[in-house]
Amino acid sequence: MRFKQIPFAWARAGSRRLSWGGERDLALKRYEALADEIAAAILAGTLRAGDRLPSVRATAAGHGVNASTVFQAYYLLEARGLIRARPRSGYFVADAATETPRALDAASAPDSESIAVDLPERVYAILEATTKREVVPFGSAFPSPELFPLQRLAKTLAATVQKLDPRVSVETLIQGSAQLRRQIARRYVADGIAMQADDLVVTNGAMEALNLCLTAVTEPGDAVVIESPTFYAALQALERHRLRAIEVPTHPNEGIELDALADLLKRRRPRALWLMTNFQNPLGGTMSEAKKRDLVALLARHGTPLIEDDVYGELYFDAQRPKPAKAFDSEGWVLHCSSFSKCLAPGYRVGWAAPGRYVREIARLKLSTSLTASVPAEAALAAFLERGGYDRHLRGLRRALARQQQTMIAAIARHFPAATRITRPRGGYFLWAELPRGVDAVELHRRALARNISTAPGPIFSSRGEYTNFLRLNYGSPWDARAEEAMAILGKLVRSLL
Amino acid sequence: MRFKQIPFAWARAGSRRLSWGGERDLALKRYEALADEIAAAILAGTLRAGDRLPSVRATAAGHGVNASTVFQAYYLLEARGLIRARPRSGYFVADAATETPRALDAASAPDSESIAVDLPERVYAILEATTKREVVPFGSAFPSPELFPLQRLAKTLAATVQKLDPRVSVETLIQGSAQLRRQIARRYVADGIAMQADDLVVTNGAMEALNLCLTAVTEPGDAVVIESPTFYAALQALERHRLRAIEVPTHPNEGIELDALADLLKRRRPRALWLMTNFQNPLGGTMSEAKKRDLVALLARHGTPLIEDDVYGELYFDAQRPKPAKAFDSEGWVLHCSSFSKCLAPGYRVGWAAPGRYVREIARLKLSTSLTASVPAEAALAAFLERGGYDRHLRGLRRALARQQQTMIAAIARHFPAATRITRPRGGYFLWAELPRGVDAVELHRRALARNISTAPGPIFSSRGEYTNFLRLNYGSPWDARAEEAMAILGKLVRSLL
Repeated sequence: MRFKQIPFAWARAGSRRLSWGGERDLALKRYEALADEIAAAILAGTLRAGDRLPSVRATAAGHGVNASTVFQAYYLLEARGLIRARPRSGYFVADAATETPRALDAASAPDSESIAVDLPERVYAILEATTKREVVPFGSAFPSPELFPLQRLAKTLAATVQKLDPRVSVETLIQGSAQLRRQIARRYVADGIAMQADDLVVTNGAMEALNLCLTAVTEPGDAVVIESPTFYAALQALERHRLRAIEVPTHPNEGIELDALADLLKRRRPRALWLMTNFQNPLGGTMSEAKKRDLVALLARHGTPLIEDDVYGELYFDAQRPKPAKAFDSEGWVLHCSSFSKCLAPGYRVGWAAPGRYVREIARLKLSTSLTASVPAEAALAAFLERGGYDRHLRGLRRALARQQQTMIAAIARHFPAATRITRPRGGYFLWAELPRGVDAVELHRRALARNISTAPGPIFSSRGEYTNFLRLNYGSPWDARAEEAMAILGKLVRSLL
Repeated sequence: MRFKQIPFAWARAGSRRLSWGGERDLALKRYEALADEIAAAILAGTLRAGDRLPSVRATAAGHGVNASTVFQAYYLLEARGLIRARPRSGYFVADAATETPRALDAASAPDSESIAVDLPERVYAILEATTKREVVPFGSAFPSPELFPLQRLAKTLAATVQKLDPRVSVETLIQGSAQLRRQIARRYVADGIAMQADDLVVTNGAMEALNLCLTAVTEPGDAVVIESPTFYAALQALERHRLRAIEVPTHPNEGIELDALADLLKRRRPRALWLMTNFQNPLGGTMSEAKKRDLVALLARHGTPLIEDDVYGELYFDAQRPKPAKAFDSEGWVLHCSSFSKCLAPGYRVGWAAPGRYVREIARLKLSTSLTASVPAEAALAAFLERGGYDRHLRGLRRALARQQQTMIAAIARHFPAATRITRPRGGYFLWAELPRGVDAVELHRRALARNISTAPGPIFSSRGEYTNFLRLNYGSPWDARAEEAMAILGKLVRSLL
C-alpha cells in the first residue's frame, strides 16, 4: 500500500512547490536535496545494488534533518526505482539501480528524394489516443500540467482580466498585445538576441506560428527540408499545405548534417527548411552554436528561409539556454517560433513568431486566419512576466524534468531488453529509444494502449513510415507507482514482440 | 459644450446597463423608453421638423417621471440627431429628423467567370487602419466593446480559471471543451436544430472555423462560390488557399439568387460555397427560410458543401432568430460556423464549427493547426452560458444595435447627398450604402482616415475590385457627438468627391 500511495503524495507535494513558490520551497527542497545526494552515491557506485541504506534515524542525525525529511527522501528514491523497501528490514539499493541503457549515436540515413506527404489514418488515431486521463502519458506531446504554476497564473489572469480595457481587443489585432510582445522581446535580448516588440507576432501557440510561416514562404508543390525523424506536426503541416518533404540525415545528439544539407540545397533547391534546433522532438538533440552559425550562413547564401521551431529551448538542463539559430540571423532568413505552452501555460495557447524579414506577411496572415490570440490569455501572460517569477518557475521545471529523465532512464534499464538504445537529451521531456530490431513499435503502441499506456511509435515521425522499431518516450510527468508499473508492462510487451 | 459631453455620459450609462444587468436596468430603461416614445412620434410625423418639444417640467409631469429622466431622454434624442436644443428656447424637432435615405433593392450582377483571388496591398492597408482608438470606427468589423458584459464575463473567467482542473487542457484537445460544446449544442436545439456536443469543434473564433472548413473541402485551384459583394475575409481565405472565386448575383435584402446559382452549379461545378445567410456582411441581407431550404436541397443534389458563416444570426431585431441553412441540412453538407466574438466576448477568440459530415476531418485539422482554443476562455464562456443571462444580454444588445442603426440612418439622411441608397438590415451592425455614381469610395476612405474616421470601401468586398462607389458602415458603437460630427464630415467629403 505504501508503495502505491506515498509516491503520489510526493508528486503532489512536488507540484505544489512549483505552483506556489515562496516559503514552502525551502522545507520541501531539503528532502529532494537529500534524495539527490543519495542518488548520486548510487549512480557513482558508492552505494551498490543490494546495499542496505542507513536507518532513517541515523540518516536524520547525520544530516541534521528530522526523520520525516528522510522518509520523504526515501519514498522519492523508491518512486524513482533506485531503492526498495523490504518489510521489517529497511531500505536497500535496487538491483537495477545503476544500470544504464546503451546510447544511440548514429545519424539517420533517410532517402534523399522528396516525397509528397500523405499521412496514414493511423497517425491521427495514435495521436488522439493520448488525451484520456486514465492513460499513462508516455506518448503525450505535453509535460504534466502539474508542473506548471497554474494557480498562480490563474490568479494573475483573474486580476488582469478585470482591469482590462475592453478596447485592447481591437488594438491588439495586428500583432498581438504590445505589452506581451515587449516582455517576449526582453527575453530575447537577455539571451543576447536583438529583438523589438514590433519584430514579433503573437499567435495561438507555436503550432499556429509555424503553420503561418509555412504559408508565408511556400507554394503548394514546393519541397521543404525536415529532420529525420521529425516532429509529426511538421509532417501534418506539409501534408495540409500540399508540400513535399525532403528528410535530411540527422544525428540523435547533434542535429542535421550540414554537408548533406549543403548538397540538398544545391541539387534539390528546396523552398524552405523546418527544423527544431534545440532538444529536437523526438530525438532530443541540439545543434551546437557553431553548427547553427554555419547553417544560417549557408541558408543566407541560398536565400532559403529557415522555420525554426524552438519550443523546448527554455527547458535546458545545463548552465545556459542553447541559443537558437535566430541568434546568428543578421539577414532575416530565420522565422523563429516559440510559445508558453511547454514552459508555463499549456492551455492558454499563446505562442509567437519572430519571422525576420517576413514579419509583415505573417502579421497579415495571422489577421486573416484567426485575427488574434485570446486577449485574456495574452494579458495574463504579459502581467505574469512583468511581475517576475517566470525564471524561478523555469529553474524548478528544469530540475524536475532532469530528475524525471534520470528516473525514466533508470526504469528503461530495469525493464527493457539490454539491446535497447536511447538518447539522453540535455533538455526537454522526450527521449528517443531504439528497440531491438524486429520489434514493431506500432503493434507495441496498440498493445500498450489496451493496458492504458500511451506511446509515440517511430513511424509517425517519418514521411515514409520508417523507424518501425523506435519509440518516443515522454518523461514530462512526475514519476509515480503508476509510471513505474507502466514501464514494467511496456518492457514485457517489448520482449513479447521480439 | 453640453452637446459634446452629455451624449457621451449617456453612452457610458447605456453600456453600464448592458454590462451589469440587475436593478439598474429599470431606472435606466425609463429614459430610453421615453426617448423611444418621442422618436416614434417624430418618425410617424406626429411631431414634425421645427416643432417645439414640451418643456422638461411638462413632460416630467405628464409621464410621471422626474426631470432628470426627461433630460436624459432629450439628450439621447439630441445625440441621435432627432432633436436640437436652441439656447434659451428649449428643444425642437431637427430639420432632417424624418428624412430617410433611399433603399437599395437591386441584386448585384457580377461577372460569372471564376477568378484567381489576388487582393491588392491596399485591402490589407485599409483593414489595418481601423484599430486605432482615436479613429471613429465606421469601417470597423466589430461592434463597440462597450456593448458587451465584459466585466461580468471577467468575473466569471476569474472564478472559473481558479477552479480549473489542469488536466482539462489535455482532455479538451480533440474538439474543445465538452462543457462548452454542450452549452452551444443546447442553443441549436433551442432554435429547433438537432445538434449534439460531438457534432461541434471549438475553434479560435469563427474565422479559424471557416478557414478549416475551406481546407477540408477544397484543393488549390478549385472554384468556390461567394456572394457579391462578399465579406473580405472570405476573399483573403480564398487567396491564401489558392482558390478561384465565382461571385453569384446577390440581392441586398434577400441574399443570393438561386436560379443563378443552379446555373453555376451545372456549368462551372464549383467545389464549395461560402455564404453568409443571415445579416450578410456587408449587405445586411438575410435569405428567407424557404430559400435556405431550397438552397440546401439544391446543394445536396450536387453533393456540394456549403460553408455557412452565421456569426451575426443572434443579432436579429425582429421577434425570432432567423434559422441558418444548417436547420434544413439532413445530409450533412452544411458546415455551419459561428462564434461568441460578435455577441459576447470579442477578444476571447472562441468560435466553433458544426461541420456536418466533415466533423472528424475538421477536428483533425484543428488539432494539427492550432491544437485547441484558449482553455481559460472556453471554460469562462461555458460557465457564463451555464449560469444564464446570455439571452438577457443578447436582448439588450439587439435593442442597442437596432437603436444605433436608426440613429445612423437618420444621420445619413441629414448629411449625405440625397442620391445615396442604403440597406436597412433587420439585424447585425452593418449597412451598405451606394454613393452617387462617380464617388470613389477608396479615395473617400483615404480622406476620411486623414480626419480620423474609418470606412470600409466597396472594392475590398469584391474579387474584381468592383463596388467603387459603395461603402459599408458600422453602427455597432453607441452614438455620440463624435459619431455625429464624423457623419457630417463624411457627408461633406462625399459631396466633395462628386
